[in-house]
Formats: sequence, structure tokens, C-alpha cells
Amino acid sequence: MSMSERREPYTIAWDAESECIIYIDQTLLPGRYELMRCTTVDDLARAIRRLEIRGAPALGIAGAMGMALAAVRSTEGDLGRFLDDLRRAGDFLKSTRPTAVNLSWGIDRVLAKVSMARTVAEAKALAVAEANAVAEEDELTCRRLGGFGKDLFPDDCTVLTHCNAGALACRCWGTALGVIRSAVAAGKNVRVFACETRPLNQGSRLTCWELARDGIDVTLIPDSSAAYLMRKGKIDLVIVGADRITKDAVFNKIGTYMHAVAAHHHKIPFYVAAPVSTFDLARVESEITVEERDRAELAYCGDRQLVPDDVRVLNYAFDATPLDLVDAIITEIGVLRPPYAKSFQFIETTRS
Amino acid sequence: MSMSERREPYTIAWDAESECIIYIDQTLLPGRYELMRCTTVDDLARAIRRLEIRGAPALGIAGAMGMALAAVRSTEGDLGRFLDDLRRAGDFLKSTRPTAVNLSWGIDRVLAKVSMARTVAEAKALAVAEANAVAEEDELTCRRLGGFGKDLFPDDCTVLTHCNAGALACRCWGTALGVIRSAVAAGKNVRVFACETRPLNQGSRLTCWELARDGIDVTLIPDSSAAYLMRKGKIDLVIVGADRITKDAVFNKIGTYMHAVAAHHHKIPFYVAAPVSTFDLARVESEITVEERDRAELAYCGDRQLVPDDVRVLNYAFDATPLDLVDAIITEIGVLRPPYAKSFQFIETTRS
Repeated sequence: MSMSERREPYTIAWDAESECIIYIDQTLLPGRYELMRCTTVDDLARAIRRLEIRGAPALGIAGAMGMALAAVRSTEGDLGRFLDDLRRAGDFLKSTRPTAVNLSWGIDRVLAKVSMARTVAEAKALAVAEANAVAEEDELTCRRLGGFGKDLFPDDCTVLTHCNAGALACRCWGTALGVIRSAVAAGKNVRVFACETRPLNQGSRLTCWELARDGIDVTLIPDSSAAYLMRKGKIDLVIVGADRITKDAVFNKIGTYMHAVAAHHHKIPFYVAAPVSTFDLARVESEITVEERDRAELAYCGDRQLVPDDVRVLNYAFDATPLDLVDAIITEIGVLRPPYAKSFQFIETTRS
Repeated sequence: MSMSERREPYTIAWDAESECIIYIDQTLLPGRYELMRCTTVDDLARAIRRLEIRGAPALGIAGAMGMALAAVRSTEGDLGRFLDDLRRAGDFLKSTRPTAVNLSWGIDRVLAKVSMARTVAEAKALAVAEANAVAEEDELTCRRLGGFGKDLFPDDCTVLTHCNAGALACRCWGTALGVIRSAVAAGKNVRVFACETRPLNQGSRLTCWELARDGIDVTLIPDSSAAYLMRKGKIDLVIVGADRITKDAVFNKIGTYMHAVAAHHHKIPFYVAAPVSTFDLARVESEITVEERDRAELAYCGDRQLVPDDVRVLNYAFDATPLDLVDAIITEIGVLRPPYAKSFQFIETTRS
């Protein structure tokens, strides 16, 4: 799709003129659609922590662009110290979201690139160019992934998705929602059930918003009703994104595992759509820290208190789905099927 | 427990002096604890529709007391027309919540009683007495049910519950939470995970409130993380209430089925606690209407719009869990185990 065909600006982009990041503030949707700017690494860290920027692939782009920001804002003249500053900025950004691997991946990719520079000026130029390359590749990746994934969809189907693995989680198009877009673009008749995705309602706020914007048939449901709709025969397949894929498990938004168990029980295909940058194949589930987020996310609805002050809250942001519940992983290099060991070996080879 | 030992008024009670219903408005909890009054059947219908009064056993009491209200407010002098008025009021009240069987049960119980009256004055007295009997029996039922159920709990355990099958869903003590109270009273060490229970958060607002009030260890989680906590070995058993038990399925708050599927997958016991009045053994799942509730429950968080106006919402209030996923049904006459056919036959005999 050429620039002129796009109806919406990118979720996150580098503004060459003012040398800063422009992004859609996702905490304001669906009520307000607003483009914001980050001019410093601190700005960006805050935007990531507040989930104004979220979604695994978008975080990869954000990480890369964060390195570009750090580079262009640096007043350090010595290349060694300049690179040390960049690495420190990278470590700081990585700490904002420990579970999503793409953030680290985007940061490390720019760091590897700038380490080849011979001057600070060259390093700055390389950082910006590499950050833009990461963003452009993300779009290509989503479209390729969508192209492979659409073939898994029947010509007429109802699909369940959880959280937002959409255009808003990437530069554009999306991973799980990218596959849905590609299926619709190929003429398939696709209806979507979007789970609201507690506690931050990315399903209600983001997935419903972007699918409705694109004229795709979407119905909002509470997370807890997905299994019942499967029982009633109303869901043909499940498709979700991923925040990290280890050798043995898919980490994604809390609730994903529950849908995988329910899909397995009802013999409904459960698909994960994720770029190769999401894979972390040197590690296993038990090595990964699952973020716990603020009590307030569950304790309040707007200003209204939902739970007494003295009650504890356990608010995991992610869960882990073992690979034996995953029927396929859709990537930009093709559809992986179980047993995954062989394709994982291939991925490790292409990345090293 | 004698009256003097109670720390809180009943969830719903008949006020003999002003001849009206006094109840705790559950929509205001946990922020405000307020006792309200219903003086007419219309008042009561509104309170039920707005979920100020909710919970299957409490709806049974409400139904019975609704008939008492209709009786004492009636100015009809002719016994036949008086009884016709009462039946019409009963049909009207039944229509407020089609899925919960206890509401109809409470109404029909008072109607059967008053049909024995020879004068209007006698009918009024019988209606009030029977409504009070329903309420008193509800407390006895919960305590008996709790006594049977507590023996299913290990001496030290972590329990998952969904929605509110507690003191607030009954006259007091509770069904599922009544079993938890009985286990704690018997000296067992019980920790509770309460699911928030979207979209109306009865778990956050009511279950957390009443368990914390009674000093029982409770942690709030989003509905979608229960399966993951099971995977992490953090849950020993699941216990929930029921709104209706047919020959083949348990109807309860949306999300119950998902927990049953997850418990089955993880080989964790799944228990239902419900009085005999919840059974509707002449019918099967397919004959029961599952209420769909307002779009606004999912579309808004306080004043904040969560989903664009043009997006459809599917908001089932209940789901159905087939009996083959239920390890035991705890009632006031004992613990029923699969296969249930024989114990169901016994229940039908005792009720007819």
C-alpha cells in the first residue's frame, strides 16, 4: 500500500524535521485521537510506562527510535563515551517493560548498527537510519505475515481475538489483526469477537476502534464469555499476538492462556501471529519475569472505587501459553506448525 | 448464630412495622453501605432490574417478599380477585430476571400458600408469614450447605470463586462463600482468589467487601487470570454458586463455564454450592433463556466511553456449565456427586 492509500498516520513514526518521535496516544482512544511527540528518552520511557505506546512490534520500533532520540540529543563529542551513553539509555528503556522482548530487540539492533560508526556524526546518522529501517520493515513484516496467515482462515468464519495485536500495536496493519485484514482484503467473510481485555480494555478501546474504522465486522464481549461462545459453536478459530515466544511458551496479554485452554477443549484452532523479532529461543518460560501492574488498574473504574482499600490485588500483565496448545505460529517467513523444534532451529540460524 | 451475634443486618428482610422490604443496595458497595426500602411491587421490580437486589437465593426471598408486599398493599376485598392480582404481580416480578429460577420459586411458594386462605385477611397474613419463612429457611439452608461443603476443603487451601455467591446473595452467610465461611469457622486455613466478574464487578465490589469485612484472606484478580493461576499451581479448588440447575447444566454468572473448563484441564475440583430451590430438573439447558444485559455495562467505565458507538456488544449475563465438568453440587441436603441422575431423582421426590 503506498503512502497515498493510507487513511491514518502511522502508530509511531520518526519526524525527520524536528528529530523526534510522533505517536498516537493510545490511552486516549477511543474518545480522543491525538498525535503526541517524544523529544527525549525520558519522554519516551514515560510514554511506554503509561502505555501511551504499547504492543510488542510498536515497542520494538519505539526502542529503536529511542536510540535515535538518545543519539541526536547527545552533545558528547567522544565516540566511546557517546556509545556508552547510548547503551545506558538502552538499559534504562529496557527496564520500562521487562516482558516484551521486542523493546530490547529494537534497542539492540540500533546499538549493533551504531557500533560500526567511526565518528559521532556517523553514529547519529546510522541510529536514525536504522530506527527508520526497523519501522519500515515492521510494516513489510505485518503484510507478509498477514499474507501467510490469511490462508488459515476459512472463506467464511468468526474469529476470536484478545487484546490488541493490530495496527495500533505495530507501525500499521497489525499481526493478529493484520491477518484478519489480509483475509478480508482477499475477499474472505470474517466476523470478529474482540475480548474487552481487562483490566486496561485494549480490546474495547483499541481493537474495536481500529476494526470499526476499517469497516470490519466486530462485536465486543467480556473476556469471560469467550469459552461459552465456543461451547455455543459461535467461534471458528482464535488468533492472538505475542509479546515473547520462548522455546516452550508464548507470552501474551493475561487471558491468552485461558482462551488457548478453552480452544483446546472445544477443538478450535488456536493461532499466534508474531514477527520473528518476538522469538527469544535461548530461553524458557521459567526464566521470564511476568510484569505485575498497578493495583489501581483493577481497584478503580474511573474515579469510582471498586474494591475496599485493604484487599490485595494480583494483576499479572501477561500469561504464558505452552506451545502444545498452539496450532500454528504465523510469522513473516511462513507458518510454523508443531513440533516447533525444527522451525525454531531455522529461525535461530537466520538470526545469528 | 443468634441475632445478637450478627454484625451486619440481613441482605434482605421484611420490616413488620412499616410492612415493607428493607435491603442493602448492592450497587452502592463497596463505597457506600446503605439500607433501602421497597414499599410497592414496582419499587421491588426496579430494585431487582437495577441489581440493587441480586443473587439467586436473595432473589428467592425477594420474590416471596414481593408477594407479601402485593398482599399487604392490596385494597381488594374479594378473595378471588385478590388472588388474581397477586398472580399478576408474580408474573410481572418473574419477568424482571428470566434466568434465575429462585425468583419464580419464591413467588410460587407464597402463591401456593395464600391459595389455601379462606379470607383476604388470612391470605395477607399467610403471605407475610410465608415470605418470612422463606427468608429464615434461607439462612438455615446456607448454614447446612456450608456444613456439608466445608468437608470438601483441605485443611489448608487456596480457593477460586467467581461473582458473589455470598452473604450478599442470600439472607446472610452465603452459598459458595458460606462454604468458605464454614470451613474457616471449622479452623481451616482458607485463602480466596476472587474474580472481579465483568462487567458489573460483583467479585470486586461484593465478594471482596464481605470477605474482608469478615477477616477472610482474599485477593482480587481479573477473570482472565484464573486459568494462568491454575497453571502456576496456585489454586486448589473452584467453588461457585448457581442461578439455575437443570437436568444437564449449571447456569451461573458469565465466566463460570470458562473456570470449569480450566479446572478440568488442570485436574482441579470444580464445586457448585446451591440450595435445592435452585434446581429446575424438569428442564434442560436448551430450554433456558440466557439474559442479555445492556450494552452500556461493557461500553462505559463510569462516564468514560470504552468502545466506539457503532460497535456491537454481546453481553450474556450467564453461561451454562455441563454437569460432566462439575465434581460435586453442595446442597443443604448433602453433597451430590456424579452421576447426578439418582440424586436428582431424590430431589424431585422431596419437592413434589
